[in-house]
Amino acid sequence: MGIKLYGSAMSTAVQRALVCLYEKEIEFEFVTVDMRSGEHKKEHYLAKNPFGQVPALEDDDDVTMFESRAITQYICHNYMDNGTQFIFPKDKKKMAGIASWIEVESTKFDPKASKLVFELIFKPMFGIGPTDMGVVSELEDELCKVLDVYETRLGKCNYLSGDDFGLADLHHLPTLSLIMDSDSKKIVEARPNVSKWAANILARPSWAKVLALKNN
Amino acid sequence: MGIKLYGSAMSTAVQRALVCLYEKEIEFEFVTVDMRSGEHKKEHYLAKNPFGQVPALEDDDDVTMFESRAITQYICHNYMDNGTQFIFPKDKKKMAGIASWIEVESTKFDPKASKLVFELIFKPMFGIGPTDMGVVSELEDELCKVLDVYETRLGKCNYLSGDDFGLADLHHLPTLSLIMDSDSKKIVEARPNVSKWAANILARPSWAKVLALKNN
Ligand SMILES: N[C@@H](CCC(=O)N[C@@H](CS)C(=O)NCC(=O)O)C(=O)O
Ligand SMILES: N[C@@H](CCC(=O)N[C@@H](CS)C(=O)NCC(=O)O)C(=O)O
Repeated sequence: MGIKLYGSAMSTAVQRALVCLYEKEIEFEFVTVDMRSGEHKKEHYLAKNPFGQVPALEDDDDVTMFESRAITQYICHNYMDNGTQFIFPKDKKKMAGIASWIEVESTKFDPKASKLVFELIFKPMFGIGPTDMGVVSELEDELCKVLDVYETRLGKCNYLSGDDFGLADLHHLPTLSLIMDSDSKKIVEARPNVSKWAANILARPSWAKVLALKNN
Repeated sequence: MGIKLYGSAMSTAVQRALVCLYEKEIEFEFVTVDMRSGEHKKEHYLAKNPFGQVPALEDDDDVTMFESRAITQYICHNYMDNGTQFIFPKDKKKMAGIASWIEVESTKFDPKASKLVFELIFKPMFGIGPTDMGVVSELEDELCKVLDVYETRLGKCNYLSGDDFGLADLHHLPTLSLIMDSDSKKIVEARPNVSKWAANILARPSWAKVLALKNN
């Protein structure tokens, strides 16, 4: 049956899985989960992801999984020969760098970045309340500390885990894209290497495909 | 030169790497980083981890990496035949489950659990201030939602990613152990399957070795 990705193209976590599937040039079926009607909290969906969140992925008849960063790694390991190569099983050193920077995105960048885009974009969009500018400025300060390390790193190599576009870079795309659409883009623009990196990864054709699906 | 792990045995992130090295029965040198004197923010250490945090790992002459969960995955992939087996490259289905539950620990459990142990244990220990019981109770409520999903899951299999002790379980040990030493253990004890799982994984000889090193 091939790959089915469940979710909504509005979700940053779903976009992370989508951009990976596009990079890997893998055919898949995108199955929309109607989050407005709470489909992600219904039994048939909870069987795919017990936390009731998108995305979830099915592959062939027997694989069901969830969590966007687990999905990208699963895809890269199991479809090694498709599209962009992200996994180099025989290169210990390269794999060590890739693994380290994947964790940086997920434990250092994302916790601040997702809260920031929630304040800036999703709160007003879903009528949850007005953006709290105090919270925004605190999150920007915390992200700046992370981006300072990126700035130094990206002075040494073009991408976070080395000279090639990698999975760690890719994982940033959904939240980074929203930050660049907001006033908070100033924290990126203040750092020349980060700014160049951001422009570079946001220009990937795979990301344009995600935006097209989202704006569809 | 083999493996060198840099850090302090007091650090939960370092303990995560340590317990994995013990499970895998890998010889390594533990190099203490003197955090009291700020050694982790000095140039020679920042070359190993640009975020100035512990742990960092070196392997042979050319691998330097950081982030505890990257380190465990690196070890498991590169020392497949040592000790407990955590990686099954030929079993797509198993690997999908392992990857999903590793992400659950890092994006759902740990963000709440580390804040909880910071409030309960590290704030008073390092004289940062008294425990804020309002924050504790909020974090407990959020962790309960995660543990409710664990409770159902652990009614179906003995460990989070299946019938065998896995990397996702192992990643919980450092924070789970501190929670079980505090009043917040009640949120674990209220859930029979979670409680049995916690007792089970905390009883691993590898974990006893970490505690021995910490209390040394
Ligand atoms: N760590 C998860 C996060 C998934 C997530 O937060 N999904 C959101 C949409 S971006 C969701 O499903 N929210 C609905 C809910 O939590 O009820 C991942 O990376 O897949
Ligand atoms: N996500 C990192 C977290 C590392 C971390 O927070 N280490 C703490 C000790 S548990 C540390 O080095 N703190 C000192 C600091 O941040 O300055 C990992 O899992 O390795």
